[in-house]
Amino acid sequence: MARWQPNASKRLVLAALELFAERGYENTTVIDIAQRAGLTKSTFFRHFQDKREVLFGDDTMNRLLAEAIAAAPATATPLEAVAHALDAAGREAFTPARREFSARRRAVIAATPELQEREALKGLGLIASMTDALKRRGIPEVTSCVAAELGALAGKIAHERWSDTANGDDFSEVARRVLGEVQAASASC
Amino acid sequence: MARWQPNASKRLVLAALELFAERGYENTTVIDIAQRAGLTKSTFFRHFQDKREVLFGDDTMNRLLAEAIAAAPATATPLEAVAHALDAAGREAFTPARREFSARRRAVIAATPELQEREALKGLGLIASMTDALKRRGIPEVTSCVAAELGALAGKIAHERWSDTANGDDFSEVARRVLGEVQAASASC
Repeated sequence: MARWQPNASKRLVLAALELFAERGYENTTVIDIAQRAGLTKSTFFRHFQDKREVLFGDDTMNRLLAEAIAAAPATATPLEAVAHALDAAGREAFTPARREFSARRRAVIAATPELQEREALKGLGLIASMTDALKRRGIPEVTSCVAAELGALAGKIAHERWSDTANGDDFSEVARRVLGEVQAASASC
Repeated sequence: MARWQPNASKRLVLAALELFAERGYENTTVIDIAQRAGLTKSTFFRHFQDKREVLFGDDTMNRLLAEAIAAAPATATPLEAVAHALDAAGREAFTPARREFSARRRAVIAATPELQEREALKGLGLIASMTDALKRRGIPEVTSCVAAELGALAGKIAHERWSDTANGDDFSEVARRVLGEVQAASASC
């Protein structure tokens, strides 16, 4: 078997999602996932450090958000820079073609404490990436933390609404609307 | 050996913290922890579901925060209700006698990805408890989410500052100061 497999990572993710939904996370082994994808266990571990990681992949999203914040206009407020990050997430990751996959993935995570733990940690990583990117814009530390937290909250609510309903709205539209709600809410706290 | 052991839970926590600091989380077994505490493995599992859980214990903190939010004056704003929750955390959990323990615990967690995952998930649980308690005060959903997130952020920053420095400030004092900073920052986002 050739060492390099086209789309190996994607095939492993889809196989894992199917198996977790069919028989549960606990009852699925890494070997099961590799076999379903037509690959080997060692290929799995070239792509993912452990079974939990298969639904979370690499740090693409962290980079994506940080780069979008860096590229926001110099005049942007902290939350405007965060809105650029959410736009980028919609453009590059939460595309219409990914909506149904995102909904299935969310359901599997919601049913699995191990995956909830990994997701919680990944969420902190996203917040840290956004916080650092905001600080590099010269925004004070605590303001950067708050803007990143509010952006992450908006992203989370938006992802729930976007993946749950097939109303045709792009993720970015939903996210900008939710970010507006979050900003208004923080003014009334 | 009697089934009930006085302070078994506390002894297990202290034993685990010592062992994780001495030889690392990976190189410590549940049996090691039980032995160091002078207890058995089955006593360990009567108190904690797994090795990660030993540093996180029960849901006391969730209840504590929710009850303090419920007990805040009817006229309190969402963030004032959250301030009452942080006061309760200082009064009941992050007492001066616990400062040194908290600092050691934080260092062990920072060095251990498995414990970081569990802490991240527990953090989401605290936010959910506060959000629910705020909603029960009649505060709109998104505002409740935002106030709980800002409260959790203030609690986290305050816990870092309080446990890192022996300047004698009570946790509540530090937390109220940080909550003020967080509120000011959210107004400038």
